[in-house]
Amino acid sequence: MATRDHGDPGDAPSMPPPLQPPTKSDRPSAAEQARTIAAGSNAATLATLTADGDPWASLVAYGLLGGSPVLCVSNLAEHGRNLTGDPRASVSIAAASSDPDPLAGSRITLAGEVTRPAASEQDAARAAYLDAVPAARLYLDFSDFTLWVLQVRRVRWVGGYGRMDSATAEQYTAATPDPVAAASARAIAHLNADHADALAAMARAYGGYPDTDVAVCTEIDRYGLDLRVHTPRGVAYTRIGFPTRLNSADQLRPVTKELARLAADNSDNAAKAGH
Amino acid sequence: MATRDHGDPGDAPSMPPPLQPPTKSDRPSAAEQARTIAAGSNAATLATLTADGDPWASLVAYGLLGGSPVLCVSNLAEHGRNLTGDPRASVSIAAASSDPDPLAGSRITLAGEVTRPAASEQDAARAAYLDAVPAARLYLDFSDFTLWVLQVRRVRWVGGYGRMDSATAEQYTAATPDPVAAASARAIAHLNADHADALAAMARAYGGYPDTDVAVCTEIDRYGLDLRVHTPRGVAYTRIGFPTRLNSADQLRPVTKELARLAADNSDNAAKAGH
Repeated sequence: MATRDHGDPGDAPSMPPPLQPPTKSDRPSAAEQARTIAAGSNAATLATLTADGDPWASLVAYGLLGGSPVLCVSNLAEHGRNLTGDPRASVSIAAASSDPDPLAGSRITLAGEVTRPAASEQDAARAAYLDAVPAARLYLDFSDFTLWVLQVRRVRWVGGYGRMDSATAEQYTAATPDPVAAASARAIAHLNADHADALAAMARAYGGYPDTDVAVCTEIDRYGLDLRVHTPRGVAYTRIGFPTRLNSADQLRPVTKELARLAADNSDNAAKAGH
Repeated sequence: MATRDHGDPGDAPSMPPPLQPPTKSDRPSAAEQARTIAAGSNAATLATLTADGDPWASLVAYGLLGGSPVLCVSNLAEHGRNLTGDPRASVSIAAASSDPDPLAGSRITLAGEVTRPAASEQDAARAAYLDAVPAARLYLDFSDFTLWVLQVRRVRWVGGYGRMDSATAEQYTAATPDPVAAASARAIAHLNADHADALAAMARAYGGYPDTDVAVCTEIDRYGLDLRVHTPRGVAYTRIGFPTRLNSADQLRPVTKELARLAADNSDNAAKAGH
């Protein structure tokens, strides 16, 4: 799914390959990544068209109706006038990241056309926006503000350097946000601080790097863990898939404990077999 | 300069007016705000036009050549193809903010057309991008990456709710980033933690609110301090201008100390006059 599509001149750092295939390396689809990123923020940059057809980038807040961004913009603001003049629009949403290089983080573009909410979805659209932007209760009903729903037609996900894919509107609509996303930062910190041995054992047993000295968890989602592994051959990245897809953040602790136990057993058996 | 341009239904919270005119309330111009926000980040959202003329929003990193954003994008990426097809472009840049409401923060839109750097500015453009995005040394010379310079024609600054203005390209080019911006967060924290009495004295003496009980500094720039003042009449916002515009962050401490000393004297004299 992820592709590397640049004309590599060949002088970038290279990575040691796995010594055996990773056991399970399922990952979220681009549609799932996009739904997760959209659900994780309330700030986007909107691209609209001016009366001259020029592109205009501007910050907006948004709520979500299903996967559709709900905007509330003033008709007196440039982007409000633009949407009234031409409904074509696109939003870019960036996932939170502590990396000083903005391009190392994940982000999405959702593109389509805005429409006024249908009568049947007016209340839900209003509630979605207020849920994401509580301060809007002070101005949502000002005469010059309009609610718009972006009907998503195209979805592009970029997961950092060299990880990117598109999704169809149908895939995006059918996908769900990752239920472990909100808990992942804390789980990553806990695993790295208190369970470094377990991570290294997982990388050796299931990640394809039996020569792992140290493994650091860099990401967790409903399908598994991303690990950065340090080996005598250099630094590499691998994936430890969960036995089944998680449906709630509560499952994170038992499933990682079980993986750690199995990996440790595996390592004991390997040690015994070696004797 | 700042304008409030919404159709206020009249039920938003109101603010107690000053009891006397603030002594000096100079503020940065929209052009200065825009140059400061541009200089304070390396991440923007780019709006470009697809082959169909649709707007496309996407995350980019940027460096600065004067006030002109320098972009480095892959021709294989959608925004790279878009710029090759139509040079019209716009970037939105948001100032760092800890407010959960994204619309409370400051942001700018710069719009114009991208050009390839002139031969004479090629090295400077490359250096500007690498200075902002050091990791780009690994891919800047890949065959598919192109450097672009956004020639800014229109500038829009929004400083949060109800504060907004435009600047011409000439004003933007002539303005400079605020030299105290990088030091301001720390100075604000220090003033609020250790000099609350001095801030309240400034609000009473110079801010137009002689009935201030508590004053909290919310922003510092080269022209002065923004204060939130708490009075028996309610909460209001005021401005304490510095006697002269600061040209370096080193001037921040002496000028605020002097203002605090004068405000305290003023308060002593008022107390004496009252006896």
